[in-house]
Amino acid sequence: MQKIVECVPNFSEGKDLKVINAIFDAAKKGGKPSSARGFGRARVFELEYNKDHNRCLFTIVGEPDAVMFAVFESIKVATKLINMEKHVGEHPRIGATDVVPFIPVSGVTMEECVELAQKLGRKVGEELDIPVFLYEEAASKPEDRNLADIRKGEYKGLKVRMNKPDFGPDKMHPTAGAVAIGARKYLVAFNVNLDTKDVEIAKKIARIIREKNGGLPGVKALGFKVDLPAEATPQALQAGGFAQVSINLVDFEKTNFDEAYRAVESEAEKLGVKIKSSEIYGMIPLESLVRAVKTTFKADTFKSDQVLEKRLYE
Amino acid sequence: MQKIVECVPNFSEGKDLKVINAIFDAAKKGGKPSSARGFGRARVFELEYNKDHNRCLFTIVGEPDAVMFAVFESIKVATKLINMEKHVGEHPRIGATDVVPFIPVSGVTMEECVELAQKLGRKVGEELDIPVFLYEEAASKPEDRNLADIRKGEYKGLKVRMNKPDFGPDKMHPTAGAVAIGARKYLVAFNVNLDTKDVEIAKKIARIIREKNGGLPGVKALGFKVDLPAEATPQALQAGGFAQVSINLVDFEKTNFDEAYRAVESEAEKLGVKIKSSEIYGMIPLESLVRAVKTTFKADTFKSDQVLEKRLYE
Repeated sequence: MQKIVECVPNFSEGKDLKVINAIFDAAKKGGKPSSARGFGRARVFELEYNKDHNRCLFTIVGEPDAVMFAVFESIKVATKLINMEKHVGEHPRIGATDVVPFIPVSGVTMEECVELAQKLGRKVGEELDIPVFLYEEAASKPEDRNLADIRKGEYKGLKVRMNKPDFGPDKMHPTAGAVAIGARKYLVAFNVNLDTKDVEIAKKIARIIREKNGGLPGVKALGFKVDLPAEATPQALQAGGFAQVSINLVDFEKTNFDEAYRAVESEAEKLGVKIKSSEIYGMIPLESLVRAVKTTFKADTFKSDQVLEKRLYE
Repeated sequence: MQKIVECVPNFSEGKDLKVINAIFDAAKKGGKPSSARGFGRARVFELEYNKDHNRCLFTIVGEPDAVMFAVFESIKVATKLINMEKHVGEHPRIGATDVVPFIPVSGVTMEECVELAQKLGRKVGEELDIPVFLYEEAASKPEDRNLADIRKGEYKGLKVRMNKPDFGPDKMHPTAGAVAIGARKYLVAFNVNLDTKDVEIAKKIARIIREKNGGLPGVKALGFKVDLPAEATPQALQAGGFAQVSINLVDFEKTNFDEAYRAVESEAEKLGVKIKSSEIYGMIPLESLVRAVKTTFKADTFKSDQVLEKRLYE
């Protein structure tokens, strides 16, 4: 089975397209297959940037070594081109390359992603002279598990209180600051839209199904009112939008989108409301689809290896 | 969007592993990516052979030109190594390479698969001197649509009555016979197992849901009794197996497995029977999974491009 990991590096530049593209292109170039390096390719896509946050991020997917090589290439360029001493932006940040999470997609365990974070951390610390903090599943100390805690005080704060990093020097890089490298589970974003405009119903359902209140494991949920865009049909506009249960599934192996859907459906039914539609937001691993089909249709023996497209790239 | 087709060539050799492997290996070698030829790779897998049928087949999946190149390489070897004058076997056949269907998987229309069949047909006719009959969606005459009609009288019969082929000479190749090359839709094999051992219930449901009797479009269905293998648990053996609705979905864009499942479920309910489990048999295109998720969870905007693994190989 082919090993596939995802990496979503975040960089502290969201305005200067020349810099953003240079970082993105370095990853793309690094992701090209190379028989000399002895590993396959990594795909680099979904570049996003935000001027107010002054931040950009993209997705790298592929074999573990290829992904690590590609992200390291982009970190090198970010280190050269971004000066944190001059950086201004709304989003919390500690360095030019700010956060680098590795996420298992298929054929890879969380332990392997932790090792990958360590391997990249060592390389960034030693070769680029940047202090590296391992976070979340890769954290070496409990106080580093939560990324928000590492970021406390952000670039300037960290510069003063500087903890002992996991790799690299004990002091901030003069222009690139520090970086948090870690491992976490895949997050599936899933919205269920209700056939009502009463946001209180969505909020009530969200409270019932979320883990925090004793609901489903790995489920975060909030109720929202979705207003329709100007280009909606007159009928839809008259209807005045709809209520939405917005769900983050932080561990789809525990609770997958089909289970969340049925939980919302059953709670909505009790309140006399029907489901209008649902939305899988952004990317989703094949394994999540396969699990949903297995559970929903009692197809106990179904495996992702039976999906034709998957076999193309083994 | 990347174009992906499938091809499942059938060859008239199911005993001699040296010959079988030589044909299979030729396809695999032909499927390797070649920048010289200017197209990507094709994956070759799922070799199956049957001694009684004296026949083997395998699956080639990839970019259209890469698939065509790979299958042509295997046809060349089969032409050299199989002698139809000496062939004996239960399965109907007309040649060393017997049947070659092209099947759209994603980003490819049926028309493109028909063109691919024509292109390969011309090449086999001209370069290998084998008469080629285009069948099913690629058929040039109505009487060639049905493969069984082309095969009537099989190798020996065709040798005598020889129709005008679409490509190649008007007479059989002295050792390799003739070949049928065509295009067809992807077939999804799907079984629904009932929580009863009464096969009559499965037969009744099969009759109701199949297209032939006015049921769902593109659905073929039969009721079977499934006896449990010797290694089943004592409890299961005591239960005496179960009844199965065995379904072939010949056009999953018209009726997909989730719709077939719900149809069986609803008919079974009327008869007081529950569904025990279901099985997706063999390979399934990603598009079929995506459609099932869209329909079942009203996820109207969901697209296969959102599946992470798919993006790996664009």
